[in-house]
Amino acid sequence: MQRYFLTASAPTTIGEQFKLTGESVHHWLKVMRAQVGDEAEFVTANQQVVIGKLLSSTAIDAQVEVVRVSSPQVELPLKVVIACGVSKGDKTEQIVQRGTELGAAEFVFFDSQYAVAKWAENKRDRKLARLAKIAHAAAEQSHRTVVPTVSYQPSLTKLVQTVPYDTGIVAWEESAKQGESSQLVQSLNKMAIGQRLLAVFGPEGGLTMTEVSDLAQAGVVAAGLGPRIMRAETAPMYLLSAVSFSQELV
Amino acid sequence: MQRYFLTASAPTTIGEQFKLTGESVHHWLKVMRAQVGDEAEFVTANQQVVIGKLLSSTAIDAQVEVVRVSSPQVELPLKVVIACGVSKGDKTEQIVQRGTELGAAEFVFFDSQYAVAKWAENKRDRKLARLAKIAHAAAEQSHRTVVPTVSYQPSLTKLVQTVPYDTGIVAWEESAKQGESSQLVQSLNKMAIGQRLLAVFGPEGGLTMTEVSDLAQAGVVAAGLGPRIMRAETAPMYLLSAVSFSQELV
Repeated sequence: MQRYFLTASAPTTIGEQFKLTGESVHHWLKVMRAQVGDEAEFVTANQQVVIGKLLSSTAIDAQVEVVRVSSPQVELPLKVVIACGVSKGDKTEQIVQRGTELGAAEFVFFDSQYAVAKWAENKRDRKLARLAKIAHAAAEQSHRTVVPTVSYQPSLTKLVQTVPYDTGIVAWEESAKQGESSQLVQSLNKMAIGQRLLAVFGPEGGLTMTEVSDLAQAGVVAAGLGPRIMRAETAPMYLLSAVSFSQELV
Repeated sequence: MQRYFLTASAPTTIGEQFKLTGESVHHWLKVMRAQVGDEAEFVTANQQVVIGKLLSSTAIDAQVEVVRVSSPQVELPLKVVIACGVSKGDKTEQIVQRGTELGAAEFVFFDSQYAVAKWAENKRDRKLARLAKIAHAAAEQSHRTVVPTVSYQPSLTKLVQTVPYDTGIVAWEESAKQGESSQLVQSLNKMAIGQRLLAVFGPEGGLTMTEVSDLAQAGVVAAGLGPRIMRAETAPMYLLSAVSFSQELV
């Protein structure tokens, strides 16, 4: 069933009605060609899911009746903040799209010393808006109840000062080469439900020793993600899958 | 350091020499512009890695001296066979590229009942050759010692008859919706190092009830991969990451 995130509040009692407006109306009526009586899922601001039936519509809004209510548990037990160096091409988009499917709570992109790409200051807001849109669409498709946020930090130093976290790891290639293999498990084991895990990933060029030791000072420890070399956009997928496996399946 | 897979056998004793031929010569000399004295890694047929120094070259071959030898453990302890329904666009290529980075031993693509894409018979060999090339390049980049194979099966029935496996799972959306969350862990727990895990993934359209129950008869059990809906090309990445996490990090 098609899923939409509601920006306005909506009733969550069966039989009540609400008015759907904005882009969701356009998508449901024009793209999906919904007819009176058709149903869709709507996620309320407090993460409840209501199944709504189309009663009537105009060119700009739709009258919807709540027919069922559910509170699915589809969010990762830990809030994972994926922090990545700005990358070339469509890599940032892939990270946001796939990372949203895999349950990330938040994405932060940062400028770093070895980065081969930079976001021009005048284009940054447009880039972030585009990534936020990708997160929104991916959250709808993967039936999440939260849309991850996307933001930018000018450096790792600024990032660890600004973004709150309970536990922090950095996926560092050198760490993997030295065969480090227990830090991720240790970090996950000490976390409680609802806590924030900051996971830092370098850009294609990797992180400098200075960046990694600055992170260590902020309590963000180097962790290996297995013995194979992963590209910049693959490593966050590994981390999110590992968090899901360890927290949702084991 | 650049890595190449050797098709011919090579010495694995320091000081011995071998002749490099074929595409690797072209890449090393022309693309990477290697000079006499430069080093690269060469993976032998029996998964040893030798570091070789360029002694001399002609237009078609290069004389290389073994300067170091290593036997890195970079392969997943379980041999994971990723079996996917044929998909649209570049999804199969993404599955092979990322899946190789994440340690897959083998890829099998199959035709299925709800598939929205088919490989025309006259183009199949070309598709498989292209995917094999992608696997080769990704194996070099991710510093693996094995290049995964890529093959095709006309149906799931044929697949389970032809492809050997010790344990089989199928990632089934309905299973995830019903909250099934322990089968993957159970399946992994009963496996021994070196055994083959067959992991089946439907195409975008999913698998039919009949296909899933035929798989069950062949001992391939439905397993949930967490509560979020993943796209066809994301689910194999989750599985491979989970196998690595559970077998290499925990």
